[in-house]
Amino acid sequence: MTASDPYRSRGHEWEIIERSDPICWGQRPGPLSPEQLESFRARGFLVWPELLGASEVDALRKRAAQLRERPDLRGRDDVISEPGSGAIRSIFRVHRDQTIDGEMFAQLAADPRLADVARQILASEVYVHQSRINFKPGFEGREFYWHSDFETWHMEDGMGQMRALSASVLLTDNSSINGPLMLIAGSHRRYVRCAGETPANHYKQSLVAQRYGVPDQQALTRLAEDGEIVEATGPAGTVVFFDCNTMHGSTGNLSPFPRHNVFLVYNSVENRLGAPYGGLPPRPEFLAEREPVSLAPR
Amino acid sequence: MTASDPYRSRGHEWEIIERSDPICWGQRPGPLSPEQLESFRARGFLVWPELLGASEVDALRKRAAQLRERPDLRGRDDVISEPGSGAIRSIFRVHRDQTIDGEMFAQLAADPRLADVARQILASEVYVHQSRINFKPGFEGREFYWHSDFETWHMEDGMGQMRALSASVLLTDNSSINGPLMLIAGSHRRYVRCAGETPANHYKQSLVAQRYGVPDQQALTRLAEDGEIVEATGPAGTVVFFDCNTMHGSTGNLSPFPRHNVFLVYNSVENRLGAPYGGLPPRPEFLAEREPVSLAPR
Repeated sequence: MTASDPYRSRGHEWEIIERSDPICWGQRPGPLSPEQLESFRARGFLVWPELLGASEVDALRKRAAQLRERPDLRGRDDVISEPGSGAIRSIFRVHRDQTIDGEMFAQLAADPRLADVARQILASEVYVHQSRINFKPGFEGREFYWHSDFETWHMEDGMGQMRALSASVLLTDNSSINGPLMLIAGSHRRYVRCAGETPANHYKQSLVAQRYGVPDQQALTRLAEDGEIVEATGPAGTVVFFDCNTMHGSTGNLSPFPRHNVFLVYNSVENRLGAPYGGLPPRPEFLAEREPVSLAPR
Repeated sequence: MTASDPYRSRGHEWEIIERSDPICWGQRPGPLSPEQLESFRARGFLVWPELLGASEVDALRKRAAQLRERPDLRGRDDVISEPGSGAIRSIFRVHRDQTIDGEMFAQLAADPRLADVARQILASEVYVHQSRINFKPGFEGREFYWHSDFETWHMEDGMGQMRALSASVLLTDNSSINGPLMLIAGSHRRYVRCAGETPANHYKQSLVAQRYGVPDQQALTRLAEDGEIVEATGPAGTVVFFDCNTMHGSTGNLSPFPRHNVFLVYNSVENRLGAPYGGLPPRPEFLAEREPVSLAPR
C-alpha cells in the first residue's frame, strides 16, 4: 500500500472518496441500448430479465446440482462448504476446470450475450477474472455482508483500476423472499476505504465470513441514504450485471426456495493483475486469474 | 400432552393437520370491512397501512428508544438482549409495567382501532395475552425462524383454542430490505405438529434462539408451496394483524434502517389459559398473562 494509491484501504480510518476511474470506458457498440448503458452508468448495475432461455438455464442448473452432490469436490481449496452442514456453498473457477467438465460454464462465460456487455462497458477485450457457482439453499443459506468486490480485488489481488464487472446468472427464481442480491444504487461512484490490516491467508476465512475489507457502518449508511438499496430480482435466466465497485450484499435465505447462481467476473485485458496493493502475496488463481485464457472466438 | 388434544405437538414425528377452530368466530360489528374480514379469513393476516398517525407513532418510537437506552432494564428476565452486543432486543409486558411507565403502551393496547379488530374477529371481549417492544437494529438485527405462535402458546402456556391474534404496530418504515415480517398466506388453516420434546425452562433459550417447537422443513415447504410467502411492509404506523396460528418469520436486517415494532397479542376472554399442554410448569407471566387485567373501558 502506498500513499499515492488512489484506492488504498485498510489503514487506520475509514473514508469515502470519489472514484477516479470511468464507469463506462468508451464508445464501443454492443448489446446494451443507450438507455441500458446510461442506467448502468448512473446506478452501477443492470438487471436483464430472462436473458437466457428456459432450456439453457435448466441445463446449467442441473449441471450445478450434479456438481454440488459430488463428494470428491468437498474439501478442495476451490470448493467452499457451509461451516455447519458441510454442504457445498461455492465452486470456483468453473469456466476452466477440467475435473468438473467445465465446458458448459466456459461456453457460458464466452457467450456474447454476456461477454459483449462487458466488452461494451469496459471498451476492450475482456477475460474471466473469477468464476464460481454460488448455492444458497432454502432455510439455511447464509447472509453475505455488504462489500465492494473491487476493494478486495485491489488490495488482495492487485487489480489496478475499476475496469471490471460481474455478471450473476440466476439459476433459480429470485424474489425478495429468498435472499436476493441487494445493491446500493450509486455506490459505485465512490470508494470506501476500510479500516484494519489484513492478515496473511485472509482469504481462507473471508470466503466463509468476511472480517477485513468490511465497510464501516457509517459509510454504508451514507451510501444507502444518498442512493437506494435495490433488490435484484427476476425469474431464472435473468442476468444481473454490476460494476466491480458497487456495494452489495444479501440476507440469509429463510424461504424453502433455493437461490443459486453462476457468477462471472469480466476484467479488461488492459487491467491485468499486478502485485496486490495490500502488500501480501497474491491469492490463489482460482480466486483471481493471473494467466488468463482468452475467451473463445465469437 | 394427551392423545385427544387436537393440537398435540413435540412428539416423535411432525405432521400437518387441519385446524379444528374457526378463524373468524362470529358476526360481531367492528372496524373491518367485509372485504378485510374475508381477506383475514382466507390469508391469515391483514396489513392496515398507517392505521396510526405520524405524531402518534413518533411518540411511541421515541418512548421505545428511551427504554432501550435504560441500563437498569438490561439483565431483567423480561428484557431480552442480543447474544453478541448485549443491546436490548425485546422488552416484554410493556402494557402493564409500572417500572417503565407503560401507560403509553397500555393506552395503545386498549385503543379501539386495535382492540376492536380483535373483538370483531374473535367475537368476544379480549385481553392482552402478551405485549412487547421488538428492536431490530440496522446491520445487526437477527433472523427469526419460522414458527406458529399458537404451537408455543398451546404447549408451553396452556392456550386451548386458536382464538387469539397479534397486532404488530410498525414503529419504523418496513420494506423488503430491512427484514420485514414474512407470513405464509393460508398457513393458519392447518396446524404443524413439531417433533421433539421440550426441556424445562425452555423459554430462557427460546427467546434468543428457538430450538423446540420448530416446524419441519418439509412441512414449511408444503405450506409455502400451497400458499404464498408474503412480506408485510408499510410505512411507520402501519399495523399488521395476524392469526395466532399463521406461520411467520423474518430474515436478518442487513440494511442501515432499523425495524422496530410494538407487538400486542389479544386473546379471547373465553380462551383463558389453563395448564400447559406440554405438561411442564407454565412460563412466567411476562410471556403469558394468567391473571389478565381488562382493557380500559372504551
